[in-house]
Amino acid sequence: MRTRRAILEAAALVFEEHGYDTAKLSDIVKIANVTKGALYFHFESKEGLAQAVIDAQNEAQPQMLPQQFKAQEFVDIGMVFSHQLRHDALMRASTRLTLDHAGRGLDRVTPYQTWIELHVPLLEEAQRRGELLPNVDPRVPARLIVGAYAGLNTMSYTLGLDMDVQVSELYTHVMPGVVVPAVAIRLDTAPGRGARALYGPQGAHECRHSCAGGVSPREGA
Amino acid sequence: MRTRRAILEAAALVFEEHGYDTAKLSDIVKIANVTKGALYFHFESKEGLAQAVIDAQNEAQPQMLPQQFKAQEFVDIGMVFSHQLRHDALMRASTRLTLDHAGRGLDRVTPYQTWIELHVPLLEEAQRRGELLPNVDPRVPARLIVGAYAGLNTMSYTLGLDMDVQVSELYTHVMPGVVVPAVAIRLDTAPGRGARALYGPQGAHECRHSCAGGVSPREGA
Repeated sequence: MRTRRAILEAAALVFEEHGYDTAKLSDIVKIANVTKGALYFHFESKEGLAQAVIDAQNEAQPQMLPQQFKAQEFVDIGMVFSHQLRHDALMRASTRLTLDHAGRGLDRVTPYQTWIELHVPLLEEAQRRGELLPNVDPRVPARLIVGAYAGLNTMSYTLGLDMDVQVSELYTHVMPGVVVPAVAIRLDTAPGRGARALYGPQGAHECRHSCAGGVSPREGA
Repeated sequence: MRTRRAILEAAALVFEEHGYDTAKLSDIVKIANVTKGALYFHFESKEGLAQAVIDAQNEAQPQMLPQQFKAQEFVDIGMVFSHQLRHDALMRASTRLTLDHAGRGLDRVTPYQTWIELHVPLLEEAQRRGELLPNVDPRVPARLIVGAYAGLNTMSYTLGLDMDVQVSELYTHVMPGVVVPAVAIRLDTAPGRGARALYGPQGAHECRHSCAGGVSPREGA
């Protein structure tokens, strides 16, 4: 399993940098430091390897801590995702492969719709609990966040901006128009929220990126 | 010039639908109802024709009416753009060609940076006039709007949503976190704002799309 994992992580690096079409199996083999035979023992084709990268990311869905406000859980979806994009090469590769896939016109609709449907129930529950401002249709902020998020992700990648900061600004600006003031002032939308959602307010995680909530990994750990 | 214009408008329709690579000159000739010789008399190549579509859109920069608040002029950039995307096939084709271009990795950075630079001076002037909330860095909302706008544009195209409504929601949610309340309650961020910015509050324009501010074109006009 260690060889399989090494190949997957090498594939993530190569797919992230080059995209699906121009990624070379010879580069993956070299980075993973395995033979081509070992690669074909674990993965039958380039397509199978790309699918395994996407699956590995999907299987690693993080367990987020339940929050006092459902509106916070709504925010946490995006903040945890931006945290993962920063820390997890498999996640970045999976996102790039999914976008590549979309770029080839096979199915552009489902990724947006799936993501919107993931957000709507949380805001509906927030509404039942009285967290939302009057007359807010939960579908509107859900669509707005998903569309804006996709653009901020692309722009951050293109301009080399810190996605976590961009997404933080998005929620910080949008949420006061969605939730009642008593909830708005208690929401955490600051950079590093993803780490706090995953590991708790005082939680820390190993981080080579000097992010909020991170601690440097111990030497040789 | 009438033939050149007919070719340009036909090219806009074909580039918009098919993108640069798969657009066929034979389709453009057919829609414009001209000979292939006429096309090559006006445009030396497919690339030259695509560039002419982009240039025609750039030359048609709208004259926007000056507003009481600079923050309104900041909003109007995006609202006028969404109005034009709805009404102007040349604009839609130009945007698609620019994105295609970006997709081929030739220059993805400049379109974002140009658009951000267009927004920043308006917010800086708004800041000098006391329209902005304390501690707002004009670059932050400028970047947020540009990134979010790009994503909402792509999502609207993909899901068949009304871009004017999506952009209206974006400004309606973001601006109260940028400007002081006395300005926020006077900003027009409602759908149809693009038409009002171009033609005045009571202005109307010929519109086959039943948009806010539009009137049906007279028969035979």
